[in-house]
Amino acid sequence: MSSNTFGKILSVTTFGESHGPAIGCVIDGCPPGLALEADDFRVDLDRRATGRSRHTSQRRETDDIEILSGVYEGLTTGTPIALLIRNVDARSKDYGNIVDTFRPGHADYAYWQKYGIRDPRGGGRSSARETTMRVAAGTVAKKWLAEHFGIEVHAHLAQIGDVVPRGFDPAAIETNSFFWPDADQVPELEAYMDALRKSGDSVGARVTVIASDVPPGWGEPIYGKLDGDLAAAMMSINAVKGVEIGDGFAVVTQNGSVHRDQMTADGFTSNHAGGVLGGISTGQAVVASMAFKPTSSILVPGHSIDKAGNPVDVVTKGRHDPCVGIRAIPIAEAMMALVLMDHALRHRAQCADVGPVSPRIPGSVTEGTP
Amino acid sequence: MSSNTFGKILSVTTFGESHGPAIGCVIDGCPPGLALEADDFRVDLDRRATGRSRHTSQRRETDDIEILSGVYEGLTTGTPIALLIRNVDARSKDYGNIVDTFRPGHADYAYWQKYGIRDPRGGGRSSARETTMRVAAGTVAKKWLAEHFGIEVHAHLAQIGDVVPRGFDPAAIETNSFFWPDADQVPELEAYMDALRKSGDSVGARVTVIASDVPPGWGEPIYGKLDGDLAAAMMSINAVKGVEIGDGFAVVTQNGSVHRDQMTADGFTSNHAGGVLGGISTGQAVVASMAFKPTSSILVPGHSIDKAGNPVDVVTKGRHDPCVGIRAIPIAEAMMALVLMDHALRHRAQCADVGPVSPRIPGSVTEGTP
Amino acid sequence: MSSNTFGKILSVTTFGESHGPAIGCVIDGCPPGLALEADDFRVDLDRRATGRSRHTSQRRETDDIEILSGVYEGLTTGTPIALLIRNVDARSKDYGNIVDTFRPGHADYAYWQKYGIRDPRGGGRSSARETTMRVAAGTVAKKWLAEHFGIEVHAHLAQIGDVVPRGFDPAAIETNSFFWPDADQVPELEAYMDALRKSGDSVGARVTVIASDVPPGWGEPIYGKLDGDLAAAMMSINAVKGVEIGDGFAVVTQNGSVHRDQMTADGFTSNHAGGVLGGISTGQAVVASMAFKPTSSILVPGHSIDKAGNPVDVVTKGRHDPCVGIRAIPIAEAMMALVLMDHALRHRAQCADVGPVSPRIPGSVTEGTP
Amino acid sequence: MSSNTFGKILSVTTFGESHGPAIGCVIDGCPPGLALEADDFRVDLDRRATGRSRHTSQRRETDDIEILSGVYEGLTTGTPIALLIRNVDARSKDYGNIVDTFRPGHADYAYWQKYGIRDPRGGGRSSARETTMRVAAGTVAKKWLAEHFGIEVHAHLAQIGDVVPRGFDPAAIETNSFFWPDADQVPELEAYMDALRKSGDSVGARVTVIASDVPPGWGEPIYGKLDGDLAAAMMSINAVKGVEIGDGFAVVTQNGSVHRDQMTADGFTSNHAGGVLGGISTGQAVVASMAFKPTSSILVPGHSIDKAGNPVDVVTKGRHDPCVGIRAIPIAEAMMALVLMDHALRHRAQCADVGPVSPRIPGSVTEGTP
Repeated sequence: MSSNTFGKILSVTTFGESHGPAIGCVIDGCPPGLALEADDFRVDLDRRATGRSRHTSQRRETDDIEILSGVYEGLTTGTPIALLIRNVDARSKDYGNIVDTFRPGHADYAYWQKYGIRDPRGGGRSSARETTMRVAAGTVAKKWLAEHFGIEVHAHLAQIGDVVPRGFDPAAIETNSFFWPDADQVPELEAYMDALRKSGDSVGARVTVIASDVPPGWGEPIYGKLDGDLAAAMMSINAVKGVEIGDGFAVVTQNGSVHRDQMTADGFTSNHAGGVLGGISTGQAVVASMAFKPTSSILVPGHSIDKAGNPVDVVTKGRHDPCVGIRAIPIAEAMMALVLMDHALRHRAQCADVGPVSPRIPGSVTEGTP
Repeated sequence: MSSNTFGKILSVTTFGESHGPAIGCVIDGCPPGLALEADDFRVDLDRRATGRSRHTSQRRETDDIEILSGVYEGLTTGTPIALLIRNVDARSKDYGNIVDTFRPGHADYAYWQKYGIRDPRGGGRSSARETTMRVAAGTVAKKWLAEHFGIEVHAHLAQIGDVVPRGFDPAAIETNSFFWPDADQVPELEAYMDALRKSGDSVGARVTVIASDVPPGWGEPIYGKLDGDLAAAMMSINAVKGVEIGDGFAVVTQNGSVHRDQMTADGFTSNHAGGVLGGISTGQAVVASMAFKPTSSILVPGHSIDKAGNPVDVVTKGRHDPCVGIRAIPIAEAMMALVLMDHALRHRAQCADVGPVSPRIPGSVTEGTP
Repeated sequence: MSSNTFGKILSVTTFGESHGPAIGCVIDGCPPGLALEADDFRVDLDRRATGRSRHTSQRRETDDIEILSGVYEGLTTGTPIALLIRNVDARSKDYGNIVDTFRPGHADYAYWQKYGIRDPRGGGRSSARETTMRVAAGTVAKKWLAEHFGIEVHAHLAQIGDVVPRGFDPAAIETNSFFWPDADQVPELEAYMDALRKSGDSVGARVTVIASDVPPGWGEPIYGKLDGDLAAAMMSINAVKGVEIGDGFAVVTQNGSVHRDQMTADGFTSNHAGGVLGGISTGQAVVASMAFKPTSSILVPGHSIDKAGNPVDVVTKGRHDPCVGIRAIPIAEAMMALVLMDHALRHRAQCADVGPVSPRIPGSVTEGTP
Repeated sequence: MSSNTFGKILSVTTFGESHGPAIGCVIDGCPPGLALEADDFRVDLDRRATGRSRHTSQRRETDDIEILSGVYEGLTTGTPIALLIRNVDARSKDYGNIVDTFRPGHADYAYWQKYGIRDPRGGGRSSARETTMRVAAGTVAKKWLAEHFGIEVHAHLAQIGDVVPRGFDPAAIETNSFFWPDADQVPELEAYMDALRKSGDSVGARVTVIASDVPPGWGEPIYGKLDGDLAAAMMSINAVKGVEIGDGFAVVTQNGSVHRDQMTADGFTSNHAGGVLGGISTGQAVVASMAFKPTSSILVPGHSIDKAGNPVDVVTKGRHDPCVGIRAIPIAEAMMALVLMDHALRHRAQCADVGPVSPRIPGSVTEGTP
């Protein structure tokens, strides 16, 4: 069904189960001539990796990636780029107690109802381990977008439980293990997370991802809209329950005279739209936010049933993140980058002849969001 | 680019501009044997139509649909169903003043930057007129889902500006022109809308759509998730800036012990997930919400530029809705129905042999959402 | 299932039954700025039309096309181009005797087995009437290819029954109603066809289509090969039972030292490959041939069964062509043009940055085929 | 561009270069519950493998396949099945002389013109090595078709150079290294091939593949026809230059009264159509033939140019097959099986409710072809 494939011209197919022999992906449609080596994947895989701090799962994933195809003498050749990571530290025994049980809030029951069979080890295909390959594929897209358009894609944690950033300092985001834009709040967050871990519970989070320097004109009406594709991309990330473009749900209480981004010869006066109008980029920063649910893998016992239909109480021991939103930062960036690169290629397919169109509004204002 | 086509097995292609000769769609993949006639489209097209009350645009759209193909002696034959509506009441003159101007908050500038050419009459392809054909296609899907699974799809207005429903009476929704679930608040809403119209401004809205009796097992990991496809479908509706499944952004402040929907042999104890886990339906009601921005077609003057790059002030006279979310009710239902029918067909393609899987949790609880 | 849609970036969706209200198509992905008006479709629709000579079916199809969308002030806008033709001269009564009978050699029985329902009037969806819209869509592709690359696409009849062209004069092809490249043989063909018509029988034909001035580098390995897509396109034409690229089945008896097209700085020394190697164009003329079966709609009685399973004898009266290959000339051109334009757009999506690559072999030699 | 992906519901994505680290594929959409283990792939990989006899290339390909995902406890789970084969015996030095040269009749020049870069080792992506993964994926499809419908898919060599089978004994095909249906001719073929090898030349071949017991009703009009998809599948195999369904090009000289397969209550009286009418299976054996060109990798020197545009003479030493059609037998079967399984799934997606349709013509006659 190609349901494990994402993207139209730049397409990414992922495969693999959490505790199977390996996970991998095939990236098809990448233009030739892009410099690419295994080391390029290191930074983002580390940013996603568990074990980076005590606030994320302690599973050690070495995530050593192997490039199996599509690269010759350090350059992409235009043929499919296959990437592979062997699964090495999968303690299947940790999950032994869930083979016959459907964990509440997990995909166990849904997969069972769909397929009548499931690989229960570590959540099998529904595990967040799959997102490793999204991050890897996203690295290729980020690199291409930066080289060809100077586009930068950065995400940050915009809320965790009731805590919201008091300030917004882009430079702070990568200096703390929460990807939090206000360094002063980090101790407060650490205390919050420690208490949460002690309670055996988890909490949700809000992540915002911003792509700067996106040219105007990317995106396709009507069902291939840039924001429609972003919504699908973001909602397909494990644990995401909501997606916003620009002001998102805040528009419900706005008046039209406030919301519409006015234009002047010097630039837009605001960016409530999040850089997309009619499904097409406007030249402003493209801004998307998403809501991550609290993981259901917690120590607090929950009611469920087993395969025989009998009631059981479930406690998920394993190694899990009290806030999965934190590790999702590079995943959100990857999905944004993949959608943008796909649309860059789609745009030139249909509109390569159009050329620069005047008048073009200079600069971009990000007031409004975040 | 097939960007005007939606759906994988049940696919819908729409065409047409707001003030061109006609709009239409081609529905491909509908199973044979479904009874279908032009009258079937009447109810939802009327629910969407402008001119239904003084709170929506006064443009008269007769929206008389013609079935051009795919139906023989009152039954679908399995071949493509083409539907056509001629555009009859398009006062192009109303839009004459915007031929050389980019309206702020509209797709004018984005289309111009993409294509270097645009049909400015009534917004051309970016007009909400396109959604007429979504509603028509949705009628086919609703009918098929009801006949085959007893699925009902209903949407309602869940917020308009700062006003939220005080009560939730499903029976009230279709009795008032706001699709509002609390009949007592209707006079308040009318006063609110009258004041808004006088001020020449507009306001946003929140719409929630609920599908009941969806079987478990629909949806496809990883990039063909039911909620991922719903997100794309909803975000592709004009003016939508946010999509939620189940509790949506409320999950950010929830704990895992609260959010996860526990299971008993008698049913789920809550539906925070909105009926989808791991991208697959759980058998609970599927619940999606979306944020509609306030229309930018307002009488309040706004700054913009014209094609020569000169600053202009824009006032959009025409006939417009102060709250476009109201008319979006049947559109939201249509997109939900189209996604569900597509997934019903996709499910049986891959899993027709699986058959009913036990244990199956009975009933469905909708507590949590809306 | 989108099975009525063809092409990846330039996609064409057709709809309509032979004797329904109308047939039409939606062309999606056409670049903006192409001049297009209803008159552009006239020439090829006439070339395809029945009634052009006494050797093709006498049904009068006015085939007046209406452009419903996607064109503004004479130029394509980048949005979907919908085309419509009303069915006017459909004598359904001619087909009354086949409502309950499956004509041998037709799709009647296959459709019945698939759908359990069928529109029997004139063959319904399986009628060659559908190819009218292929021709119309092909006109757009031909025009675009000619303007952007100087590509010309021309087909001719290369065999009819046992008769093969003695000479090959491109200028002769459009001067006779057989699209035959040797004018001297036309009287012989007329006598052949008259005798055939008198006998109430039909005969097969071979059609060859050649696209000149196709740049090298179009086509995509592995499953999006230019020749693979051509094969699908040609085989999807009604009555086609075989497709060849370049020398086709003649390669079975060739030696490698003969078949391979050698290269010199002045050009290829032959074109046995038909302009495609590894699925990618070489810069030589792209050459495809196809075999059209003799129509099964003949006056010679044939054995069949009716819906009740009883044996019946079938005579198809109606108005039919004794050699459907003749009318297929513009259809073959259309499919070639659509595939080429799709690949032109796909090529620039992935390889727009590559630019002209040296060394480029000049000219093109068409020796070998036809 | 997903151009390395084949199939709509059962989709196969292949990756890998001839002399890269590995080749592999991802099979998506396979129904759950199919028994599958690495040993299942052995038979067909051996049938395809080089080194089986002195008449095929002497490269040793162990082709040990590893299942990376999608199988749990010996059963498919419905998630993507990834297969991997490491490249072990790739003597890159053999190809050193072609790094700067475009071999005539190969894809070298076409890839170079498309991408401006190519992996020359062993032909890189354009190598027939890719077909190993087609064979592997085909094994899954064959197994599923046999278990669910009793469908058998068998190919044989139907012509090599001027030699055609004198008799047709299905039991003989697998008893000789030529997959030849007349055992008496094997000595003659061996002498033919020995002489060919000595001359340093190669020759073409004709392969026919037959699928028996295909139910009626598979295939989708108009652009998703069973025969259209078969044509694309077959033409995408390396070296194929022609595809026929049923009688193929022989229809050119047939009369309609001969070609049409008449129907009786006891069965069809012939199978000129090759089991497909209107793009939909009729219940007869599905028959396809293809023409394989003689490999261009021969010892006979040929003219070409190098990267600098200078004339060169090319001799391809390496290890190559004098007749690549022989090894293509399991590849042809694989593509037939993949297309059929895809259509089986597509059929039940749209038509699962239709059920058995009467009257159904019993049995099947294969007279006519081969």
